[in-house]
Amino acid sequence: MTKPPFFVPGFRAAGVACGIKPSGDPDLALIVADEVASVAGIFTRSTVVGAPVELSRERVRTGRTRGVVVNSGCSNVAMGERGRRDAAAMTAAAARAIGVEAREMLVSSTGVIGEPLPMAKVRRGIKAAADALARDGFGAAARAIMTTDTVPKHASARVKLGRREVTVAGIAKGVGMIEPDMATMLAYLVSDAPATPAFLRGVLREAAGASFNRLTVDGEGSTSDTVLLMASGHAGGAPLRNAKSPGAKRFADAVTQVASDLTKQLARDGEGATKLVEVCVTGARNHRDAERAARRIANSMLVKTALFGGDPNWGRILQTVGAGRIPLRLDRTSVRLCGVSVLRDGASAGPAARKRAEKALQSPEVRIEVDLGTGRGRAAIWTCDLTYDYVKINAEYTT
Amino acid sequence: MTKPPFFVPGFRAAGVACGIKPSGDPDLALIVADEVASVAGIFTRSTVVGAPVELSRERVRTGRTRGVVVNSGCSNVAMGERGRRDAAAMTAAAARAIGVEAREMLVSSTGVIGEPLPMAKVRRGIKAAADALARDGFGAAARAIMTTDTVPKHASARVKLGRREVTVAGIAKGVGMIEPDMATMLAYLVSDAPATPAFLRGVLREAAGASFNRLTVDGEGSTSDTVLLMASGHAGGAPLRNAKSPGAKRFADAVTQVASDLTKQLARDGEGATKLVEVCVTGARNHRDAERAARRIANSMLVKTALFGGDPNWGRILQTVGAGRIPLRLDRTSVRLCGVSVLRDGASAGPAARKRAEKALQSPEVRIEVDLGTGRGRAAIWTCDLTYDYVKINAEYTT
Repeated sequence: MTKPPFFVPGFRAAGVACGIKPSGDPDLALIVADEVASVAGIFTRSTVVGAPVELSRERVRTGRTRGVVVNSGCSNVAMGERGRRDAAAMTAAAARAIGVEAREMLVSSTGVIGEPLPMAKVRRGIKAAADALARDGFGAAARAIMTTDTVPKHASARVKLGRREVTVAGIAKGVGMIEPDMATMLAYLVSDAPATPAFLRGVLREAAGASFNRLTVDGEGSTSDTVLLMASGHAGGAPLRNAKSPGAKRFADAVTQVASDLTKQLARDGEGATKLVEVCVTGARNHRDAERAARRIANSMLVKTALFGGDPNWGRILQTVGAGRIPLRLDRTSVRLCGVSVLRDGASAGPAARKRAEKALQSPEVRIEVDLGTGRGRAAIWTCDLTYDYVKINAEYTT
Repeated sequence: MTKPPFFVPGFRAAGVACGIKPSGDPDLALIVADEVASVAGIFTRSTVVGAPVELSRERVRTGRTRGVVVNSGCSNVAMGERGRRDAAAMTAAAARAIGVEAREMLVSSTGVIGEPLPMAKVRRGIKAAADALARDGFGAAARAIMTTDTVPKHASARVKLGRREVTVAGIAKGVGMIEPDMATMLAYLVSDAPATPAFLRGVLREAAGASFNRLTVDGEGSTSDTVLLMASGHAGGAPLRNAKSPGAKRFADAVTQVASDLTKQLARDGEGATKLVEVCVTGARNHRDAERAARRIANSMLVKTALFGGDPNWGRILQTVGAGRIPLRLDRTSVRLCGVSVLRDGASAGPAARKRAEKALQSPEVRIEVDLGTGRGRAAIWTCDLTYDYVKINAEYTT
């Protein structure tokens, strides 16, 4: 049994193995609110989405839920009418097992694209998970949503709302923005704070903008990405309604903190990754240019392989920014790797700096700072390196 | 000595080793026109460009040239005022050696970014190359412009302009759109046809649009990409002036054919590549969407690793199109791999088709056809697979 990462009053969770994965690993998770909880959701912006996303995106609009059922091992994507029927059936089975209405339940699926869900197994799994629901079940749930992840991801924070202390906690999976066949980044955040759905929506949008949306493993985006934030209100007190509610800022910060913590865990566990990389661009003409530059650097196969090799290759960083046609002033452009200045105002800092940077790049956490010398735009993106194992995982994966 | 790939009346070429590359491999090439030739050029659109591109871009505007001097092993990029001085000095040395004006000469450099050119060696190399100039020197020139290329690239075509037969021929290098540190795709096309610079510009733009601009190895674009088309007029006759000149279409087709041939050679020699891949997208809302979809598929690390592994993974193809937010109708979307239909109107073609596709994907030339089912937009892009060797070449490369 997994050690429980956290307890959040008003929520129970479970994770079980029901046989979707040939390996026999856990593949079905339930997160259930004791009473109706407020909810906000963010979903993939892909033009190819799975039936579970279609259904949950529709239902989350009510702002109320009793929980979510998640399976791994099969994404239920590109399955047409059958996929829509199966997604609805999963919520119906979960609702029945815990005694609520189907429309109060949300659903996610992650795994192979284009294969049908083995619904008999899924139904048995849902029953077993409902029987196993427990306050300390989030560790098991975190395991059951994994695909090519090598470790379960969870994070939590405690925050004071007036005199009451509340918990914000979450679990996540997804080691590419999309994995092999294995679509999807999934994250579920829960809190016992009282909050309106509208307030949660704003908080989640902002937290995701500063965390999940700043992660790129391979520049891809999945058919099934789903982030949910649920609040049970079990801590009591007046609900958080807007930025002026007492503690609103602290609560939002806690959500961002948990989301950022989970995001870094995802980056660190990126397929085949050996390094967590933060790319910080400053001095761009504006924030949009800064973000474009940071994403190009983070997604550049040449930069990512250089990081894997520990090569302080600022030439590759410059070229990918240039190839993206992002304005810069070369004679004012500077690059720092792990704090070591390797390019200063467009001139190489020389072989001694190179040696120091080479040494610093051995670290499992790498920071790339690029100043484009044209303005005040800034942005930061997390990513990981590109390794033999990334190729191995993705070339040798077969369904 | 390299076997001469072709002769083109009015041109001589040479390639020598002058010691820029520590390996001692050839690293300096000259292509010289016996008399003033018409010329057109296309250069990188990167916001970071080398001094040689700045200089050649300026000079090519006159539409006249006596030739080009090229070195490999050092790109002369990000070297500031010194870089500009060195690029100009290369053309001056070449001009002196062959008895023309410096401003009549063009220049390219390819190799490590951020290192100064060893000008004493370069000057000696230019003299040696001038002494070695020969009608059959294009094979040696093709070798001397290589960086991480494993084979020299050359192509030629013969075409009738009225009663006269002319040759169109070219050499090229560049096995990433940019290589390691090793910036650059370079291509030099020559012909003995008579043609005005304005006509050559139009022909080259169109040929590049159908060839070099359709190649992507890793989604990068270099600081030094240069394509030149020179015409000596030695075949005689009235110059090609516009689309109505006799033979204009046939000449343009020959240029496109040579450029396409060179492009395929570049893709096949892509860093670490085991397969030449053509991605053809049809049924997009418009040509722009088709091209965006084809480029996303061609640059997707997940698709490229699947191709390396011989995995007929249409799920990855769909997801990267979707993640690019390219409109499609899933229930009308189809995918063929090497002619084998694996997804038909949004439904998997089943395990037997999968087996057939797996077998077909063993071929060194792979065709991916995707129909998005929404309109008449179409586009094709060439690329290669992503392999252990790509990571090896780029992670273990050190200056």
